[in-house]
Amino acid sequence: MSDMKKNVEDQKNKKISEALEMHAKWHGKIEIRSRPTIETMHDMAVAYTPGVAEPCLEIQKNIEESYRYTRRWNSVAVVTDGTAVLGLGDIGPEAGMPVMEGKCVLFKHFADVDAYPICIRSKDPDEIVRTVELIAGGFGGVNLEDISAPRCFEIERRLKEVCDIPIFHDDQHGTAVVALAALTNACRLAGRSFSDVSLAVSGAGAAGIAVVNLLLDAGIGDAVVCDIDGVMHESRPGLDEHRRRVIARTNKRGVKGGLADAVKGANVFFGLSAPRVLTPDMVRTMAKDPIVFAMANPVPEILPDEALAAGALVVGTGRSDYPNQINNVLGFPGIFRGTLDARARDIDSGMKIAAAHALAALVPDDELSKEYILPTVLDKRVVPAVALAVADAARASGVAGN
Amino acid sequence: MSDMKKNVEDQKNKKISEALEMHAKWHGKIEIRSRPTIETMHDMAVAYTPGVAEPCLEIQKNIEESYRYTRRWNSVAVVTDGTAVLGLGDIGPEAGMPVMEGKCVLFKHFADVDAYPICIRSKDPDEIVRTVELIAGGFGGVNLEDISAPRCFEIERRLKEVCDIPIFHDDQHGTAVVALAALTNACRLAGRSFSDVSLAVSGAGAAGIAVVNLLLDAGIGDAVVCDIDGVMHESRPGLDEHRRRVIARTNKRGVKGGLADAVKGANVFFGLSAPRVLTPDMVRTMAKDPIVFAMANPVPEILPDEALAAGALVVGTGRSDYPNQINNVLGFPGIFRGTLDARARDIDSGMKIAAAHALAALVPDDELSKEYILPTVLDKRVVPAVALAVADAARASGVAGN
Repeated sequence: MSDMKKNVEDQKNKKISEALEMHAKWHGKIEIRSRPTIETMHDMAVAYTPGVAEPCLEIQKNIEESYRYTRRWNSVAVVTDGTAVLGLGDIGPEAGMPVMEGKCVLFKHFADVDAYPICIRSKDPDEIVRTVELIAGGFGGVNLEDISAPRCFEIERRLKEVCDIPIFHDDQHGTAVVALAALTNACRLAGRSFSDVSLAVSGAGAAGIAVVNLLLDAGIGDAVVCDIDGVMHESRPGLDEHRRRVIARTNKRGVKGGLADAVKGANVFFGLSAPRVLTPDMVRTMAKDPIVFAMANPVPEILPDEALAAGALVVGTGRSDYPNQINNVLGFPGIFRGTLDARARDIDSGMKIAAAHALAALVPDDELSKEYILPTVLDKRVVPAVALAVADAARASGVAGN
Repeated sequence: MSDMKKNVEDQKNKKISEALEMHAKWHGKIEIRSRPTIETMHDMAVAYTPGVAEPCLEIQKNIEESYRYTRRWNSVAVVTDGTAVLGLGDIGPEAGMPVMEGKCVLFKHFADVDAYPICIRSKDPDEIVRTVELIAGGFGGVNLEDISAPRCFEIERRLKEVCDIPIFHDDQHGTAVVALAALTNACRLAGRSFSDVSLAVSGAGAAGIAVVNLLLDAGIGDAVVCDIDGVMHESRPGLDEHRRRVIARTNKRGVKGGLADAVKGANVFFGLSAPRVLTPDMVRTMAKDPIVFAMANPVPEILPDEALAAGALVVGTGRSDYPNQINNVLGFPGIFRGTLDARARDIDSGMKIAAAHALAALVPDDELSKEYILPTVLDKRVVPAVALAVADAARASGVAGN
């Protein structure tokens, strides 16, 4: 093994051993904290029997009071079935737990949201929907996480129908919000209006479809979407319902063929697919000053240096070691904070667009550059700004209860 | 209204307003605490992506590792359907939440167990069982709470069959453990051997049946059980399966009639039923130096003063304002601490008896008296002593994984 290769290998092993070691030391990344102090029999009589009967009776009279007398107002279930965990695939609900606990840590750290992991031992959408529906009375919202497509679409849609609390599949909508913020600022930089955006997308999984839908809701001109079989167009055989819905909104020009055909002449590329599928030659066929977001993790659709050398004006990835990281942490904490603050019944398209615009607006004109189109993950202004915008949008659209 | 009545009324209203006010102030009695500190991008990379993939993969290889790398080892679901909350009855899952949160507070305060409330919006045992089964991979144990009889028996039995983690209905077994501890010490005081105990029980709900079963497991002589229709005996019409099972173990003498017939000649009374059903005259018909536990809350089956005046040697109730409080808080925190420490698959009869004996043994001979047969709820020795005994018993009976 060469010295360089060995060095990379050593670094990788060191990171693995650190993560494992720390997880064993933490012995679980979240725990319960009691808010009342229990020192005397009187304390117990107020927090537990007999005093506790009083808030119970108030809630029995009016279930809305559960938002006053219990933690429901601030509680989010982080729900998975373990079928699409990180890039690891279907590893099962127990093996997905470290990610769900990690998500709960981020919820608490960034937005003071009390999130709790619910890992479901079933892949059957009926059972997943029913389980979440039955426990929803204890929560103020549900964050679906790492559930494989296309099941995730059905599960989210049905949960929105049966639950009276907001349902949000972060892999779809969190990604879409941050992607929209990134595109908003890249267009600001390029002096390009949103209606002039001609988009090529690689990837028709949960994230890809959500990004396309939100960007269309936000007013981009057109999009051509590719999955593993190439460009999605209406005369392609074997299309499922989810693909048909996307096609109905996209590909006005009737493009056929592969990814190379999709990107030709487009001025924006979004990759939510696989490593290295976008070549520098393909970038050279795009319109002038193309914007390239290559979000496959850990290896993007094209490396930023290659994209820039091929003429890209701005490049973003999912990685923290390149500029312009498109990271869901910029989205979900503030989105849920605002949703819970407004006690919104839903997280609708308007709230998502408001979140993206608030995120984009945190970068002022004099700081906006090719290397800085989004606030960093640790920027403390992000959550309050996103939360406020989301709550305002919820109130404006009438889904807010507060 | 007389001055005294008005005073009592004022006190009661003050307590109500204090409990409501404090619950509104707490705005939920539990919250999530993050165990890792998140300050830098490196912290995020270890606790979340990409580092978190490593513990995920370890758990995928061996699900047992979920007890090392996640909080499962210390997590208990407090599960209710809200059908038998306190003495309030079927008030619904949302209205039951303040009690469940309170239980979680006690779990954390007394035993450092991370308990989380799961309030299920269904009364159908099939749905409740399936819901708990599907989420059990995230927990190290399940505490069933305030589920009405006889559904609670079926739900517990079926969950024990389908889950690989311990299932414990505290209203049954927690009560039974503390009742056994109380009887153990009352017998010590009376110089009565357990096999000489002739028991009369008022109440065949969840708690009553569990107390009878555990006392029989622990070796008492005989028991006669009364429900609302009087003494339970095998020729009584309309008996359900649960009552038949109890009758098969009890009433060797074939007593028939009402509560007065059951207590006549008995030397121990346990009430888990309704206010004031045991009269002083009935106590006078019991054998010499009767032991009377009147646990109906808040008004017991007989007031302690009346029972003592009628000849009772020892009296215990569920109330904190009389001596000898029989309170579940003496049981469940230590029982779950020991069960989780031993990673026991079940909480069997031997573990429950061990818990009761450990609790009883905390009162030394020279302190044992008519007014002090059990440690107080705030006695800090209780949880470690019970936990150790339970873990030892689990290891001895082979249900321990640690």
